[in-house]
Amino acid sequence: MSKVLFHLNDQNKVEATLRNIENLLEDSDEDIEIELVVHSEAVYSFIENKINNLKKINTLIDKGINISICKNTLSNSNLKKEDFIPGISIVSSGMGEITRKQAEGWLYIKP
Amino acid sequence: MSKVLFHLNDQNKVEATLRNIENLLEDSDEDIEIELVVHSEAVYSFIENKINNLKKINTLIDKGINISICKNTLSNSNLKKEDFIPGISIVSSGMGEITRKQAEGWLYIKP
Amino acid sequence: MSKVLFHLNDQNKVEATLRNIENLLEDSDEDIEIELVVHSEAVYSFIENKINNLKKINTLIDKGINISICKNTLSNSNLKKEDFIPGISIVSSGMGEITRKQAEGWLYIKP
Repeated sequence: MSKVLFHLNDQNKVEATLRNIENLLEDSDEDIEIELVVHSEAVYSFIENKINNLKKINTLIDKGINISICKNTLSNSNLKKEDFIPGISIVSSGMGEITRKQAEGWLYIKP
Repeated sequence: MSKVLFHLNDQNKVEATLRNIENLLEDSDEDIEIELVVHSEAVYSFIENKINNLKKINTLIDKGINISICKNTLSNSNLKKEDFIPGISIVSSGMGEITRKQAEGWLYIKP
Repeated sequence: MSKVLFHLNDQNKVEATLRNIENLLEDSDEDIEIELVVHSEAVYSFIENKINNLKKINTLIDKGINISICKNTLSNSNLKKEDFIPGISIVSSGMGEITRKQAEGWLYIKP
């Protein structure tokens, strides 16, 4: 089974990244585990009331994709977990999460 | 021998990516295998009649660099293999290709 | 111990990349080794007289972060090592450095 980590920090790449994840799910015959690590300005695209891609994101969450939001970005932006759509996780830092997961063997893709 | 996968999805990064590949070829004493995975808008830079860097790209193909174009992007853009310069390959998806190659031990560079 | 390589080639990403490295240092309980490979236009942000983030960069150098500047970029821009802040290293090429370090097991992050 492959484990793949997508790294998203650019608000202009949100749509493309969601599409990339959908394409990877479609092009995998074997079990695949996917995590999307979101930090910097890109986190704004996951705030509950401002979200453009809610249906697409919820479909990915339903399919088991783990969306991890960087706690540092939250603190710097005065945001809290409750501001985001349900189903996301908060991680201590985007960089720490990317490092730890790669160290465990996760593959890395930067759309 | 190192195997290195370059990921290209941005039309503004085509020139730089080709130069990066040339630089890597020059800075490798050992055998190196390089694949360039192209998807999204960047595929337009490899269409036969519209190409700006034909000589540079053909030189890389002659040196054994494998250029892989994403089939999803082709379908979405109504393009087919014959629209592209000879020597490129079509892969079932850019994301699948990047995942499978990394899982086989290929290194990953996003210019 | 994790070894993490940051890849910087975009002048607009310098600030964010320095902040990402600081965040990773803060979010690591174990020993961590970090290298920042800089090439293309991003090298201009490390020239001694033109630098905006000198204090931040010097703090990172003091903490053991290795900043590696691509020799190809220097040659193409008529720059030499002495033009840069003290403490940086020159590597034969950014691409070669990224490839060699990943082949040795370093993790890769592209901010």
